[in-house]
Amino acid sequence: MCQNCLIKTIHSVHSHFGWDNSFVPVERVAPGTTLEFHCRDSSNGYFTPNSVTADVANMPFDKINPVTGPIFIEGAMPGDVVKVTIDSFKPSGFGWTANIPGFGLLADQFKDPALALWHYDTQSLAPAAFGEFAKVPLKPFAGTIGLAPAEAGLHSVVPPRRVGGNLDIRDLAAGTTLYLPVEVEGALFSIGDTHAAQGDGEVCGTAIESQMDVVVTLDLVKDTPLRAPRFSTPGPVTRHLDSAGYEAFTGIAPDLMQASRDALSNAIDWLCREHGMPAEQAYMLCSVCGDLRISEIVDMPNWVVSFYVPKVVFA
Amino acid sequence: MCQNCLIKTIHSVHSHFGWDNSFVPVERVAPGTTLEFHCRDSSNGYFTPNSVTADVANMPFDKINPVTGPIFIEGAMPGDVVKVTIDSFKPSGFGWTANIPGFGLLADQFKDPALALWHYDTQSLAPAAFGEFAKVPLKPFAGTIGLAPAEAGLHSVVPPRRVGGNLDIRDLAAGTTLYLPVEVEGALFSIGDTHAAQGDGEVCGTAIESQMDVVVTLDLVKDTPLRAPRFSTPGPVTRHLDSAGYEAFTGIAPDLMQASRDALSNAIDWLCREHGMPAEQAYMLCSVCGDLRISEIVDMPNWVVSFYVPKVVFA
Repeated sequence: MCQNCLIKTIHSVHSHFGWDNSFVPVERVAPGTTLEFHCRDSSNGYFTPNSVTADVANMPFDKINPVTGPIFIEGAMPGDVVKVTIDSFKPSGFGWTANIPGFGLLADQFKDPALALWHYDTQSLAPAAFGEFAKVPLKPFAGTIGLAPAEAGLHSVVPPRRVGGNLDIRDLAAGTTLYLPVEVEGALFSIGDTHAAQGDGEVCGTAIESQMDVVVTLDLVKDTPLRAPRFSTPGPVTRHLDSAGYEAFTGIAPDLMQASRDALSNAIDWLCREHGMPAEQAYMLCSVCGDLRISEIVDMPNWVVSFYVPKVVFA
Repeated sequence: MCQNCLIKTIHSVHSHFGWDNSFVPVERVAPGTTLEFHCRDSSNGYFTPNSVTADVANMPFDKINPVTGPIFIEGAMPGDVVKVTIDSFKPSGFGWTANIPGFGLLADQFKDPALALWHYDTQSLAPAAFGEFAKVPLKPFAGTIGLAPAEAGLHSVVPPRRVGGNLDIRDLAAGTTLYLPVEVEGALFSIGDTHAAQGDGEVCGTAIESQMDVVVTLDLVKDTPLRAPRFSTPGPVTRHLDSAGYEAFTGIAPDLMQASRDALSNAIDWLCREHGMPAEQAYMLCSVCGDLRISEIVDMPNWVVSFYVPKVVFA
């Protein structure tokens, strides 16, 4: 990133809900341009430090996950690749995590709304208190980074697609480079859904959802087709979590979804028993710091998924 | 582990194929006993430094994955838990990795046998050369650790079960504690299938398969029922791989298996293109060092699985 360049700021008033390649670009930029995006949180500002659990039921679901953009990248054509260098995050210091009924890996087991509010130091980014139960290391990233899809019309923001979108990949943090396949002229890049921390899986359906400003550089790669998003990290990805090791819980089943659900359920049971946490608190804690890993996917017919709870949160 | 204790050695002649609770125990031990197991590799010594690819086709499949044991743990009853403290490994220095037709995550795409042989330094455990293509950091562990199942009869060694077995969890390395549910009197513990290195997923179906001696301590936990194996690591689990960061490739699909296959295929394509590797070599390299992680499992209806290739192997 060019330290002395004038960086264009894209304000969060320029945000949209869902993806549509007919959205009018807020800006047209040359490849290589660095931009600062002001991103709203995934509740579009609905949750505040004064929110209570009852507010979860009244979330306006037609106004979730706004993304700031779109940016028209000059010269981008279908078949090209947008290279997104994720430069830095300026977090807001407030965040929330919720169990939203009907949403999440164990939605059938957790039918009641739950809400956790977070306050963290934006300078030190020191681990943030999760009530009296744990302290969660932070690693800001953008949950939603994507381009407009080729298919006409308005598409829900919820599912990620070939062009990216709601990827919720924990390692799309500062320093990472993300490559996205272009499907429309100009690419139409947007970003949002910033998270202060999340585990692999985002198992309860939400991370530490938190408004942030994000600086990225948008480049164009020609002549190297890409089937799906890929990314390159400049260094380790779990050292904020791994220093004290892990308590890990397996799910063993012929179906990866069932194995994932079992592994998570076993982790929650253990957190309730060993750390005296209410189950819905354990579920939310797992979502913001625990990792779902596929231990083996070849020993027919049973696969092993392991859910890793970092011990450092209890240190 | 007691440094001055006399450790009982269980020789590899005492090994069995498959699991059967009628197998006669090779030893009866009190809880707290430390044992050294001499483990054969998963080919039962079939592959040697002189093996060639053509040998893969003639593997004797009725003699794969021998495990050393079983050990009767005095006082162990169904409902109890065996606590396995994994103390240390004494690796042999020779290993093999194969693509075995019909086996592996992309068996439909890789129908021809392939074989890689490894020679590594047993003292330094320095990264081992994978031909001219890469150097793979080592982290010895036991792929198969388990107890006899309650169900009578002989059960295949291939699938892992509630009582453990062929878990192929990369982090069952020195220092890790594994907890297994007991289903039969005496528990009937066995161990084998030692690996010098493996990535999460073991995607081609084999790791760096390598004969080793393993020292473990077997303890008994009463009054804490366990639904599935769990384990606790004493520290970080990926620092042998993560120092240079990762090239990561996504698979995005409504089915986790399809997403996993797509992510791996995308990684292999990239390895072939960027590192000039034949596809079957890339597939085997992914198996011994790449990690399958579930990035998100909640953004209906599309899940994201990411395959992480550690850059350090090309350093």
